[in-house]
Amino acid sequence: MDKILIIGGNAAGLTAGSRAKRLDPRLDVTVLEKGPFISYSTCGIPYFLSGLVGSDDLIRYTPESLRAERGIEAHVGVEVDSILPSRKRVSGRRVETGESVSFDFDRLMIGTGVKPRLPEIPGIHLRNVFTVTGLADAAPLRAALAGARNIVIVGGGYVGLEIAESVRALGKEVTIYEQRKRVLESVDDDIARIVEYELLRHGVGLRTGSEVEALVGESDRVGGVKARGLLGAQPADVVLLDTGVIPNVDLAVAAGIRTGSTGAISVNEYMETNIPSVFAAGNCAEAFCPIRRRPVLHYVGTVAAKQGRIAGENMTGRRARFAGSVGTTILKVFELAVGRTGLSSAEAATERIPTVSARIEAMDRAAYYPEARKIWVKLIADRDSRKVIGAQAAGYGDVSKRIDVGAIAITSGMTVDELSQTDLGYTPPYSSLWDPILVASQRLLRKL
Amino acid sequence: MDKILIIGGNAAGLTAGSRAKRLDPRLDVTVLEKGPFISYSTCGIPYFLSGLVGSDDLIRYTPESLRAERGIEAHVGVEVDSILPSRKRVSGRRVETGESVSFDFDRLMIGTGVKPRLPEIPGIHLRNVFTVTGLADAAPLRAALAGARNIVIVGGGYVGLEIAESVRALGKEVTIYEQRKRVLESVDDDIARIVEYELLRHGVGLRTGSEVEALVGESDRVGGVKARGLLGAQPADVVLLDTGVIPNVDLAVAAGIRTGSTGAISVNEYMETNIPSVFAAGNCAEAFCPIRRRPVLHYVGTVAAKQGRIAGENMTGRRARFAGSVGTTILKVFELAVGRTGLSSAEAATERIPTVSARIEAMDRAAYYPEARKIWVKLIADRDSRKVIGAQAAGYGDVSKRIDVGAIAITSGMTVDELSQTDLGYTPPYSSLWDPILVASQRLLRKL
Repeated sequence: MDKILIIGGNAAGLTAGSRAKRLDPRLDVTVLEKGPFISYSTCGIPYFLSGLVGSDDLIRYTPESLRAERGIEAHVGVEVDSILPSRKRVSGRRVETGESVSFDFDRLMIGTGVKPRLPEIPGIHLRNVFTVTGLADAAPLRAALAGARNIVIVGGGYVGLEIAESVRALGKEVTIYEQRKRVLESVDDDIARIVEYELLRHGVGLRTGSEVEALVGESDRVGGVKARGLLGAQPADVVLLDTGVIPNVDLAVAAGIRTGSTGAISVNEYMETNIPSVFAAGNCAEAFCPIRRRPVLHYVGTVAAKQGRIAGENMTGRRARFAGSVGTTILKVFELAVGRTGLSSAEAATERIPTVSARIEAMDRAAYYPEARKIWVKLIADRDSRKVIGAQAAGYGDVSKRIDVGAIAITSGMTVDELSQTDLGYTPPYSSLWDPILVASQRLLRKL
Repeated sequence: MDKILIIGGNAAGLTAGSRAKRLDPRLDVTVLEKGPFISYSTCGIPYFLSGLVGSDDLIRYTPESLRAERGIEAHVGVEVDSILPSRKRVSGRRVETGESVSFDFDRLMIGTGVKPRLPEIPGIHLRNVFTVTGLADAAPLRAALAGARNIVIVGGGYVGLEIAESVRALGKEVTIYEQRKRVLESVDDDIARIVEYELLRHGVGLRTGSEVEALVGESDRVGGVKARGLLGAQPADVVLLDTGVIPNVDLAVAAGIRTGSTGAISVNEYMETNIPSVFAAGNCAEAFCPIRRRPVLHYVGTVAAKQGRIAGENMTGRRARFAGSVGTTILKVFELAVGRTGLSSAEAATERIPTVSARIEAMDRAAYYPEARKIWVKLIADRDSRKVIGAQAAGYGDVSKRIDVGAIAITSGMTVDELSQTDLGYTPPYSSLWDPILVASQRLLRKL
């Protein structure tokens, strides 16, 4: 009975284990998780903070239910210290007791995810300064928020914006510091501006182009934030650091597993590392970008789960290939939806891809239908190949549909000409005779 | 100054005229419309009947605003009697006065749409028996509904189902007679059953497999419906006939313009008929189906508008090509959305395409998110090529997104393997980690 061992009990790891066990129920599948929880929705944490959902809602499997329903053994609170590929063994210890443990494997998957990239400023170790990379962070943050009035979020990325909404829903004062000129680096400035308007409209303080220099406090607890150009300190009872994450590869590197230029574990399309029988998947591993035709980082659960599924299949001896990821993300910021897929104009410029783009404003369904809402849709094309290489959208209506349509168009290599004629569904309650994505492609065609 | 003449003032005709005028403002563009309105949303009529929107909402341009804003001359109430291609002239008369009129053209577009296919049963000419093919039908129907209690709809297609909802919203009793085994012929039985459940749940009487044999009445007004196997007559103050439509081609045929095997006007990819300088577009013309690789009928405004746009471009001397239509439609039936694209299993069987299909039930977004709703997604693949050739969905959540994603996948020739790995957007408020379309493709892969 072959032993499959998986380090990391979230999207990549659990998907891999479940897939392997389903394909070959005779396998002995074991998952090691450093933290107290497995199989939870990281993306649901903002809705737990605002009280919209309970923490139980976010947890799909406990170790007990995973064993009962899927026949997989999961150990929580087990931190792996080293991987010994030559002996096909990992060793570590139980976090609570310090007790040494070791596990043998025939095939290993590393799904260690990410760790926060902390800013090098004084005060980040004060109490009530948080990062959110997993469910274990959420309960202490929620408890701290309960007694707090002024919240500062450092960094205007996905997590920062979602949590800004959650914290406003709790009636707190929120200020976001973002050292770049705009929030949400992954979308172009014209779309980011729409997001910023939504933040301001809901009373979020926004300090873009503003670098935080220190967190200050009395005794060991944070009390304020100092930023360049800011006189004195802005009061802060709780500070959330959304200053980015980096792939958690220390364990892999120490075992001689190769990382790529992105800093994440280098894997081939089968999710194999350079070491035989050792796979990697999820946010600790590189993801192939079919537009750039090279590995990139995509810190999203969807890609982690897809990679985990491939790794799981291949750990049973199959040869499934990961097709790559076009970088699709979508986000709710108060009443606004904002999404992106493919390359932004800025990313395309970095790749030296000559682009043309067009942005339109439209209603998301028949303008006369009572639920019609305004959305903005932007399409980006490769000027030479005429292929759609990026789509962004924001608005108060159905943005998600247009982003997914864009993702499929980009993945399949559609040209703007083809997209502009696609037969999308129309009925007044859900869409318009000329869908915004078609209108945007027509606008783009005029420039090509 | 070249003269562009267009017969038919709705989706195809107005789009063609607007496109031609925009590309070449020097053109003299004239539109002839038999009815009293131009440029209206036929698909919005059910929402006018229920009072959700006003009739003005449905009209985008009047002849006056069309002249002022687009420089196009539209004549309403002008019925064309004959087209004289050799003289480049059409002749007709004003409906109200009977006055003869004629118009010269350099290029002509026929966009005469469809006419109802009436059943050959007694009583269809009684008062309060309606068809709905245009806005002119809507006001009399709405007036008749005001005093009515029992409404019978003959035919369970798109229009019949939408109007059933509208009429229930007005508090009337509604019964649908459908001679086939199921409503909504364009979807497979398993999806149609979900629609039927929704109709029953909202108190619509449903008589499938039941052929209406006569409409009966006192004096000249309808009072009931007789159906095979029904004792006596079912009371009906208003009867709506949704018994299908046929392309309105009499005028074209009389002028020597060729129709295809479908009965609609035969056009090439440039929307040209067999007669030089005469174009056709919209529901009176055939539409190329890229899956079947032959012309078919698609009675939808989206295809009409797309064909009109192509015809409009080509009437200015361009050579734009119509890429065809995969038959995407979506419909709201009470709280249920139902859509389809590509071929149904039944249609594929007719084409002798060997298929495999899978249907899944899933929540439309993170199951724990308060707005999550159940949907059913069905995918159909060509067993040999593994390409996705059909998608259907129904449910209480976001069905429209999955249908449009399916439409793009089918149009671009994606295989199930490719679709199953596509990077779709995820955030709990709008979607799930594994989108239902991905889950359906995984299920389908197991059968391929």
